[in-house]
Amino acid sequence: MDTNTPTDIYMYFTLYGILGVDEKAQLLVTYIWLHYWWVNEFISWDPVQCGADKITLPKEKFWLPDIVINEFMEENKAPTVPYVCLYSDGTIHDSLPVKIVSSCNLNIYTFPFDIQNCSLTFNSYIYYAMDIKIFSGRSAELITELSKNVMTTKGEWELLDIAVLKKYVNDTYDLYTDKIQYDITVRRRSTMYVVNLLLPSCFLITVDLFSFLLPPQSTDRSSFKMTLILGYTVFLLLMNDLLPVTGNSIPLINVFFTLCLALMVASLLETILITNLLCCTADLPPVPRWLKVLVLKILGFIVCMPRKKKRKSGMCPIH
Amino acid sequence: MDTNTPTDIYMYFTLYGILGVDEKAQLLVTYIWLHYWWVNEFISWDPVQCGADKITLPKEKFWLPDIVINEFMEENKAPTVPYVCLYSDGTIHDSLPVKIVSSCNLNIYTFPFDIQNCSLTFNSYIYYAMDIKIFSGRSAELITELSKNVMTTKGEWELLDIAVLKKYVNDTYDLYTDKIQYDITVRRRSTMYVVNLLLPSCFLITVDLFSFLLPPQSTDRSSFKMTLILGYTVFLLLMNDLLPVTGNSIPLINVFFTLCLALMVASLLETILITNLLCCTADLPPVPRWLKVLVLKILGFIVCMPRKKKRKSGMCPIH
Amino acid sequence: MDTNTPTDIYMYFTLYGILGVDEKAQLLVTYIWLHYWWVNEFISWDPVQCGADKITLPKEKFWLPDIVINEFMEENKAPTVPYVCLYSDGTIHDSLPVKIVSSCNLNIYTFPFDIQNCSLTFNSYIYYAMDIKIFSGRSAELITELSKNVMTTKGEWELLDIAVLKKYVNDTYDLYTDKIQYDITVRRRSTMYVVNLLLPSCFLITVDLFSFLLPPQSTDRSSFKMTLILGYTVFLLLMNDLLPVTGNSIPLINVFFTLCLALMVASLLETILITNLLCCTADLPPVPRWLKVLVLKILGFIVCMPRKKKRKSGMCPIH
Amino acid sequence: MDTNTPTDIYMYFTLYGILGVDEKAQLLVTYIWLHYWWVNEFISWDPVQCGADKITLPKEKFWLPDIVINEFMEENKAPTVPYVCLYSDGTIHDSLPVKIVSSCNLNIYTFPFDIQNCSLTFNSYIYYAMDIKIFSGRSAELITELSKNVMTTKGEWELLDIAVLKKYVNDTYDLYTDKIQYDITVRRRSTMYVVNLLLPSCFLITVDLFSFLLPPQSTDRSSFKMTLILGYTVFLLLMNDLLPVTGNSIPLINVFFTLCLALMVASLLETILITNLLCCTADLPPVPRWLKVLVLKILGFIVCMPRKKKRKSGMCPIH
Amino acid sequence: MDTNTPTDIYMYFTLYGILGVDEKAQLLVTYIWLHYWWVNEFISWDPVQCGADKITLPKEKFWLPDIVINEFMEENKAPTVPYVCLYSDGTIHDSLPVKIVSSCNLNIYTFPFDIQNCSLTFNSYIYYAMDIKIFSGRSAELITELSKNVMTTKGEWELLDIAVLKKYVNDTYDLYTDKIQYDITVRRRSTMYVVNLLLPSCFLITVDLFSFLLPPQSTDRSSFKMTLILGYTVFLLLMNDLLPVTGNSIPLINVFFTLCLALMVASLLETILITNLLCCTADLPPVPRWLKVLVLKILGFIVCMPRKKKRKSGMCPIH
Repeated sequence: MDTNTPTDIYMYFTLYGILGVDEKAQLLVTYIWLHYWWVNEFISWDPVQCGADKITLPKEKFWLPDIVINEFMEENKAPTVPYVCLYSDGTIHDSLPVKIVSSCNLNIYTFPFDIQNCSLTFNSYIYYAMDIKIFSGRSAELITELSKNVMTTKGEWELLDIAVLKKYVNDTYDLYTDKIQYDITVRRRSTMYVVNLLLPSCFLITVDLFSFLLPPQSTDRSSFKMTLILGYTVFLLLMNDLLPVTGNSIPLINVFFTLCLALMVASLLETILITNLLCCTADLPPVPRWLKVLVLKILGFIVCMPRKKKRKSGMCPIH
Repeated sequence: MDTNTPTDIYMYFTLYGILGVDEKAQLLVTYIWLHYWWVNEFISWDPVQCGADKITLPKEKFWLPDIVINEFMEENKAPTVPYVCLYSDGTIHDSLPVKIVSSCNLNIYTFPFDIQNCSLTFNSYIYYAMDIKIFSGRSAELITELSKNVMTTKGEWELLDIAVLKKYVNDTYDLYTDKIQYDITVRRRSTMYVVNLLLPSCFLITVDLFSFLLPPQSTDRSSFKMTLILGYTVFLLLMNDLLPVTGNSIPLINVFFTLCLALMVASLLETILITNLLCCTADLPPVPRWLKVLVLKILGFIVCMPRKKKRKSGMCPIH
Repeated sequence: MDTNTPTDIYMYFTLYGILGVDEKAQLLVTYIWLHYWWVNEFISWDPVQCGADKITLPKEKFWLPDIVINEFMEENKAPTVPYVCLYSDGTIHDSLPVKIVSSCNLNIYTFPFDIQNCSLTFNSYIYYAMDIKIFSGRSAELITELSKNVMTTKGEWELLDIAVLKKYVNDTYDLYTDKIQYDITVRRRSTMYVVNLLLPSCFLITVDLFSFLLPPQSTDRSSFKMTLILGYTVFLLLMNDLLPVTGNSIPLINVFFTLCLALMVASLLETILITNLLCCTADLPPVPRWLKVLVLKILGFIVCMPRKKKRKSGMCPIH
Repeated sequence: MDTNTPTDIYMYFTLYGILGVDEKAQLLVTYIWLHYWWVNEFISWDPVQCGADKITLPKEKFWLPDIVINEFMEENKAPTVPYVCLYSDGTIHDSLPVKIVSSCNLNIYTFPFDIQNCSLTFNSYIYYAMDIKIFSGRSAELITELSKNVMTTKGEWELLDIAVLKKYVNDTYDLYTDKIQYDITVRRRSTMYVVNLLLPSCFLITVDLFSFLLPPQSTDRSSFKMTLILGYTVFLLLMNDLLPVTGNSIPLINVFFTLCLALMVASLLETILITNLLCCTADLPPVPRWLKVLVLKILGFIVCMPRKKKRKSGMCPIH
Repeated sequence: MDTNTPTDIYMYFTLYGILGVDEKAQLLVTYIWLHYWWVNEFISWDPVQCGADKITLPKEKFWLPDIVINEFMEENKAPTVPYVCLYSDGTIHDSLPVKIVSSCNLNIYTFPFDIQNCSLTFNSYIYYAMDIKIFSGRSAELITELSKNVMTTKGEWELLDIAVLKKYVNDTYDLYTDKIQYDITVRRRSTMYVVNLLLPSCFLITVDLFSFLLPPQSTDRSSFKMTLILGYTVFLLLMNDLLPVTGNSIPLINVFFTLCLALMVASLLETILITNLLCCTADLPPVPRWLKVLVLKILGFIVCMPRKKKRKSGMCPIH
């Protein structure tokens, strides 16, 4: 420990659960079982003579590496394990469960179909690379496979892959810190969001499009569209509980919903304009020819109104 | 303890309460009283001579098995019990309450009528099967019966059954880990969900069906249906607070609600189409004979419209 | 302590506050100040000689009874008191505040007017009745009176009564465990629920009843009633935040609200039927005489329609 | 400490923040910095000889008074300070931050303009007045001034005053317990509630009043008023999140809102009655003279209907 | 330590994350890594002789400065680091992560575009300036740059700047306390609020303005506007979840929303008045000339009604 040769620490973890994601504070909550191995040169015994090649002793008697996770944002709330395991060749095996609340750069642009990539960087807090070296005790593929085996629950997030990255970080004092970085890739299961958010929204948009088939002469069409917009606002309320909130980037789905609302409002405004034209132009002087052509060509084209009705447009709807 | 013969640990627990279920993070919160027994060969005394066959001593003086629950996702938040009980034959009895937040594969397909099956797997964290063997101290039937007796509260979940399963798990290092697994089967009490979710939804669907009886000539029918859809959206808002959210599978009840909304939207679109047909076909050329037959046969059959009114369909509703 | 004569423990508590009730998980949160007295035969001194009949010493030097509350579901989150008080005759007085989260069989059938009865059962976790005997140090009336004096706050729950019950429980090993059970009776203050839930509901029901006075010839009556049902759905949303949710029994008030909704839907369906009858029977063949009598007698009686108008029922409402 | 003369403890605190108020559980959350001084006669040294009149030593080596706050309902969640400060004359200065969750009798009758008065009573848990005497180390004015200086944040609550009250409480065993009580007076900042609750409510009431100007002959007036009531119900939903909920007394503002709703419902019922009178009295026999006078005088006066129109009231609105 | 010369403590921190802001309780939650350096004159060794210029030892063996953050409102919930680092010249390096819940005067007047300035004041709790002097170990620019590098997550808040301020505070006992104050300036990312709050509000206001184009003769315009106000109330509900609530100052955006509601209500009231004028003036005596001019000039100008229609204003809308 207190020599000049660095201590090699081998580590791996098994991901036991993805408990949640807080998009606003950019946090990921996971639960892992962490394993460390290192060799203490001062401890060794003859397994044949002592009759056991492995003993278990309380943790507080030993030096433990102060390995922290850089992205940690909360204290560890997992139950503590009070023992470490010593082997006859001086190897010490420490294993403990950790509930990790780690900061993670969550990008929710493609929201219900998003794949997040979060890192867990393990390094010693106090020791530099000349004191402690950290290695991954198992390959990334094995860690991924083991994690997928134990993580049988099917919550909102699905584990895709775990990758290992070794880093030497040059500190400001020209001392290297040894780091090991695990990249966890998770995918959101999106079925619930499609059924609860996208489908009802498409229903309401369809109704809005079809509402142009309602007879334009009565003011009821604008009332109908207003109720539709009201319904969409209520639906936005429902959506607000499900959509992740973050101050940075707007998810594409949010832009889609705002666009839908804009289209509804636009179609309502158009309906109001048409109603105004149909109703109040009776007493006005005849429209100039160029405007008549413009209106008949363009507006008639947009609303797909049967051409013959256009002639009656001077009449007030209620008569 | 430090010999080659494994320590036999007998355990059982009594389920005192089911505190809740978090469907999104796939967690089950229970509260149990846990009992362990094992024999320490170094401790024994003559009960006649000492005048007592049982003494109680502080926990920290003794080796305690580091038995953990595999599914644990939080630290134990139950009050601590500082004593263990020693018997004259060396048996040590340790009992402690545990508040368990365990991960569990919750399947909510049949939502308000669902039965969940969660496991609690007890094993030693550090020791292998050659060091520690775990046995269930009482039969599964007795544990179930005792748990049902003490769990007098009637919350959302009802205990159905507790089963015991013994497992030997072959570790990657060819060492067996001894595990004991308890399967807890709980059933959701569904009365509240039927009264608050299913009944109002059926009411609104009934209203939607009957709304076809409203006279089709006026545009009011579409307004009425739009208000109905608005009401259903508000109801979906209410439902959103009660329905469990999970990213994986959609509960059947959710599909039912989306189907109801789809039906309402379809019936609204049909109403708009009929209104359009009734109102705007006056100035159009007479329909070809084949379409007339089609419309009269099929559309008239769907809407159950009296046949004689069909002749007046060319008239504008407001006249 | 380590003799064959049981230690008599006298205890009482003062209820300082009722912090809340969680109906779904069936929990009651209270805050009490707990007092224990027992006699340690090994401690005694001459108060005259020592000049003090009472000294205060740190808790960790003494054996403390491991008395737990059976219904406890969380760890104690109250501040710790580090001292016990010793009297010259060997009496030890230990007092500590406890924040209790206890499970309780809450029956919310008569919801805003409900009275709950929760028990706190104190017993030793490890010791049997031959080791420890627990007695109530003060009478139930005195505890109730003291608790009412200190609990000046007026939250949602009002303390009615505290009763004491002594129990000997025969364990499965034929050993008696000594228990003492306190029954706390609390009553919910219901003013807020009457004003916020019952009054608005009655308002809306009244409006629904009076809406039959609207002229039946127009389709507006159904639109009016639909808006009313929409308003009631919104109101159910509001109610959802206030009503306690439990999976077991439905509160009477919930049945009342569902009944109100059912009545509104029924009255809406009836309105639609009448509108249909009024509007669409013009072109139908005359009704058979037996049906005419039935309709005029029963339907006319229900809707309280003036008899003369019935003759005009063949006319379409808008003409 | 273990003598017959009581230890005099001087204390004061500075209020650093008012973190929140829970009206339902009747809790106040504050954050204070607490200071204690007392004299330990066994500790004294010559400051000239030792070269320092003050040393700082770890807390656990000393007897500390077990002063608790009676209203405390949670454990202290503030960071711990591990040192006490000793002066050469034996004075010990202990200071620590405390996060207080104290029960408080909150009266919310005058809700958004309410002033709350909460007490913090400091007394020893174990010691009686003959052992420990507590005095306020600084005057109430100074504490108030210091607290206002450090509490620069402007949250929902504004500190008005802190008062000191000394109490001798006669225990049931005829022993005095020495208590010191601080009364903290805080005022709610009400601007937000006025803008978000009172203003929109007044807007809707104004609309309801003006809606009587709508022509009474059509059934649209009742539809309009129904939509208004629907809007008010939605507004009640919004209000529900902001209004404090307590089971005891109803805030005046809640009564006001219920009264507004009652008025709206009453005006809607009246509208329905008038519509009924206007529409359906055509075929009835002429009203008796005494009723005619009554109606024309009273109803005409309430609705402020122009007198001439009354003559046409027998006509059906749609003709 | 126990000499008369003050201990110089150098410190700096790196801001790792801004976890959230609670506007109501005026709290800022950040996560920092804190570094302290000081010289212990009693510790020194010859690095050549001992073979190491740096050793790592458990924290509890050493005196640690009791430096607290004045604005702290919660205990530190970050994981603990059990070691300090000793250099051969007696320098001790202590570094630990801290989760800070600090009170901060949040001004939300310019809400979604607001910049907050929060201070973290580090000082010793017990020691005065003659005992401990605190210096910033790194320049403010370097701290800002380092923090921006490590804080890669893009949550709601963006770090703008960190500034250092040295303060000597004259205590009431004429003793100086040495303080160092860091000012953290953060800016809210406002895109989400613009899309979710401002855009829909502008849409609804636009609809309200255009609704004046609807024909004024029918009472439908008032119904339409009422539905619009209902939609805006629902939208206020949605807004309520997103807007920060504070009792002190009203954000400008809140004033804007209330003004929008007021405008909508005003335009609805005007519509009702016009409807009343159009409908009910038929039977009234001709208006005096001065009022006629006033109405035609001003009201006609406001509503932009075509002048010719005004002549028909005596007609009842439905005829």
